[in-house]
Amino acid sequence: MYVATDYPSYRLARRSQLLKRSALQEMLVAASRPEILSFALGLPAADLFPVDAYREAVATVLGDPRALQYGPPSEPLKRHIVQLMARRGVHCRAEQILLINGAQQGLALLAQLLLDDGGQVMLEELSYPGFQQVINLFRPAVVTVPTDPASGIDVEGVAACLARSRPAFLYAISSGHNPLGVSLTAEQQCELVALARHYRTPIVEDDAYGFIYYQDRPVPALRALDEEMVFYIGSFSKILAPALRTGWIIAPERFIPKLEIIKEASDIGTASLAQRTIAAVLDTGILPDHIAHLRRQYQARRDAMIQALEECFPLEAEWHTPDSGFFIWITLPEWVHSGELLARAIHEEQVAFVPGHAFCSQGGIHGTNCLRLNFSHCSIAQIEEGIARLGRLLKQQLVPTQMATVR
Amino acid sequence: MYVATDYPSYRLARRSQLLKRSALQEMLVAASRPEILSFALGLPAADLFPVDAYREAVATVLGDPRALQYGPPSEPLKRHIVQLMARRGVHCRAEQILLINGAQQGLALLAQLLLDDGGQVMLEELSYPGFQQVINLFRPAVVTVPTDPASGIDVEGVAACLARSRPAFLYAISSGHNPLGVSLTAEQQCELVALARHYRTPIVEDDAYGFIYYQDRPVPALRALDEEMVFYIGSFSKILAPALRTGWIIAPERFIPKLEIIKEASDIGTASLAQRTIAAVLDTGILPDHIAHLRRQYQARRDAMIQALEECFPLEAEWHTPDSGFFIWITLPEWVHSGELLARAIHEEQVAFVPGHAFCSQGGIHGTNCLRLNFSHCSIAQIEEGIARLGRLLKQQLVPTQMATVR
Repeated sequence: MYVATDYPSYRLARRSQLLKRSALQEMLVAASRPEILSFALGLPAADLFPVDAYREAVATVLGDPRALQYGPPSEPLKRHIVQLMARRGVHCRAEQILLINGAQQGLALLAQLLLDDGGQVMLEELSYPGFQQVINLFRPAVVTVPTDPASGIDVEGVAACLARSRPAFLYAISSGHNPLGVSLTAEQQCELVALARHYRTPIVEDDAYGFIYYQDRPVPALRALDEEMVFYIGSFSKILAPALRTGWIIAPERFIPKLEIIKEASDIGTASLAQRTIAAVLDTGILPDHIAHLRRQYQARRDAMIQALEECFPLEAEWHTPDSGFFIWITLPEWVHSGELLARAIHEEQVAFVPGHAFCSQGGIHGTNCLRLNFSHCSIAQIEEGIARLGRLLKQQLVPTQMATVR
Repeated sequence: MYVATDYPSYRLARRSQLLKRSALQEMLVAASRPEILSFALGLPAADLFPVDAYREAVATVLGDPRALQYGPPSEPLKRHIVQLMARRGVHCRAEQILLINGAQQGLALLAQLLLDDGGQVMLEELSYPGFQQVINLFRPAVVTVPTDPASGIDVEGVAACLARSRPAFLYAISSGHNPLGVSLTAEQQCELVALARHYRTPIVEDDAYGFIYYQDRPVPALRALDEEMVFYIGSFSKILAPALRTGWIIAPERFIPKLEIIKEASDIGTASLAQRTIAAVLDTGILPDHIAHLRRQYQARRDAMIQALEECFPLEAEWHTPDSGFFIWITLPEWVHSGELLARAIHEEQVAFVPGHAFCSQGGIHGTNCLRLNFSHCSIAQIEEGIARLGRLLKQQLVPTQMATVR
C-alpha cells in the first residue's frame, strides 16, 4: 500500500484548486457545539416538525417495496405542488415541474443550465452564500447590484447594470430574503420582471422561505408575473422538514427535458421514498394548517427577538422587523467588526451568529459591521437569553469610544 | 401573465444547448410500461429489499426529531463504511470518506474536482452511460481505450494512450463491469495502478456493483492497491436499496474539504434521515448475511438466464458468464442492429433490453450488434419467459440470411 507522500500530486480542475473553507466557516463549525446558543444557521425548529405525520406516511409508503426502488419523479407529488403554488399566486402545470433535492440543488442545476464557465451572473451585494458557492465553481464574472436592508434589491440599480452588461441570469429572493428578511413590493416585482423581459435576462427566483411570511396578504412570487422569464425554486425544507431533501423547480416546459438530463447526471433522481412520503403527508391535507401554525410560531419567535433586541441592544444598533423568512439583519456602527465580535461572542458568551460579510457577494468589505440573527431555531427562552448575552457583549464593545445607551 | 411565445428566448449555457434525450432513451421510457418484461435497467430486485429492517430502523430514528433536521455527515455511518470496505480489501479511515447521494453523485462530484471544462477524460470504449452523461456537461476530449467483453479494460491500450495524452483521470469499473459483467484480475489491477502512478493520472473507481460478486474469492477493489491514485465510489443502492440515495467516496484526505464544499454547493448534504436510518440498519449487524443472501439470489438469477440463453438463443449469439454485477453482454452477428431489434422486441414480444451502442463512449458504431441484459430485477420465471420470447424473435431475425441453429 502506497501512501500520499510517495507521490507528487496530480493536478485538480482549475475550479477546485482554490476551494478552501473560510476562517468564518471554521468558526461556525466551532459554533455548532451543543453548549453554544446559536442564531447562526437557517435551521427550522425541530420541535415544529410534523414527526407523527411523517412517521405514519413513511409506514404507509413502505407497504410497497417499490418505495425503496429507483423510480420516476412522482406525478402525485407534482400535482400537490401545483396546488401548493396557488398559495404563492402561481399558476403552473405539472409539466413545468422538476423534482429536486431541496432548493440548493435547484440553484446548482439552474446554474448548469444557464451559466457558462466564466460567464456573467447578476446578484445583490448581500445575498445567500450557498448561491455564491454554486456559482464560484463556474468562476463567473459577478455583477453586483445594490441592496437595501429595508427594501431589498435596488431595481434602479438592476436597470443600470443591465444597460451595460448581459448576465446569464439575475439571482433574486423576492420573499423572505436571506440575510435581510425583506420581501419585495408588488411594484418592485413588476419593475424587475419588466427589466428581465426588456433585456431578455431570466431571473432565478429562490423562494425557499416564501411560504413563511408574517403579513396578512403576502405579495405573490415573481413567477406569478411571468412563466418564461422566471425560473422558480421551492422547497419542503422549511414547511415540512429539511431531511426530506425535496424541493422543486418550475421552469418553462421546453427546458424540463434538459433539466432532467442534468438532474440525472447529478444523482439519477430524488429518492422515491422521500417523494412518496411527502405525497402521502400532503394527501392527508394537513399542510395548509401546518404552514399557518409554523407562521404563527415563527412570528412569535421573531417578535420575542425584536423585543429582546429593543431591551438589550445598544441604541447604536439598527434593524428592521422582517416581514418573512427566518432572519433579522442588524447594522452596528461602522467601526465594529462583526467577525471579531463573533469570536468574542462564542468564547465569552457562548452565543453565535453570522457576521455580515459572509453574505457579501464580492467577498469584501460590505457588511463587516452587520450581523445576521436567525430566530426560527431557538425557543423563545433561548432567544431572550442569547440576545441578553449578545447585548451585554455589544455594550462592552461600544463603551471604549462612546457610552452605550440602553434603549 | 405572459407566456413563452411572447418572447424570443434567452441563451442557455453552451453545455445545455445540445442536451436532448436520445431516441434510445425515449424507447426505454416506452419499455418501462408495466406489461413489458424488462431486462433493460440496472434495478436490484425489489423483493430482496430488507423492508422490515428498514421499517424498524426508520421508526427508531424518528424517535429523535433531529433525524429530520439538517445535519452534519454521520460519523457512525462513516465508521460502518470503514468496516464494510474491509470486505473489498480496502483499509481506509473515516477522514477519507465523503457521504453522498449514491454512486452517480460521486461521479458528478469527482468530475467537478478533477475535470476542467473541455479537459481530457480516459474511459473504456464500452462504459456506463451515466458517467458519460456526467462528463458530457464538461464537453470533454474523450480518450477511448479498448475493452474486451471477456477480460475488460485493455491495460496495454491504457499504457499506449497514457503515453500520448494526459487525461484528468481514468474512469474504471474494476468489478461488476457495467455493461460487460467482468471483473479485472489482480494482475490487470496492479498494472493499471502502476500506470496511474507512472503517469500521475488518478483513477476514478466506480464500485457500485463491487459487493455483488459470484466468485468465492473476489479480487479486492483497485483502491486496495493505492490510496493516493484511486478515488473510490461505493453505494448502498445495490446492497440495501436505491431509494436511500446514499453512497460514499473514498479520497485522499487532503481533498475531502474541497469535496465537502462541492457537495455542499450541490445539495447542502445527504439527508440526515437516510444516513441515520442506514447506520441503524447496519447497527443490527444484518448486512454481511444480507449481502451473502443477495449474492446467492442474484447468482441463481444469473444462472437461470445463462441456462435460458443456452436453450433459446441462436448459436450465433455469444456471451460470457458474468462473475459479478447485474448484467450479461450478448454479441450478435455484425449485421444485426440491436436498436432495431429493441423496437421489435418491445412491440412484438413485450420484452426490453439495452442496445449495445448505448454504452459506446464515442456515441458511435461500436456495440450496435450487442445487447445488455439485466438479470437482477426479474424473477426466474420472468427470466425464462423473457429470454424465450427474445430467442424466438432473434431466430426470426437471423433466418433471412442464414438458418438459425438451436444451441
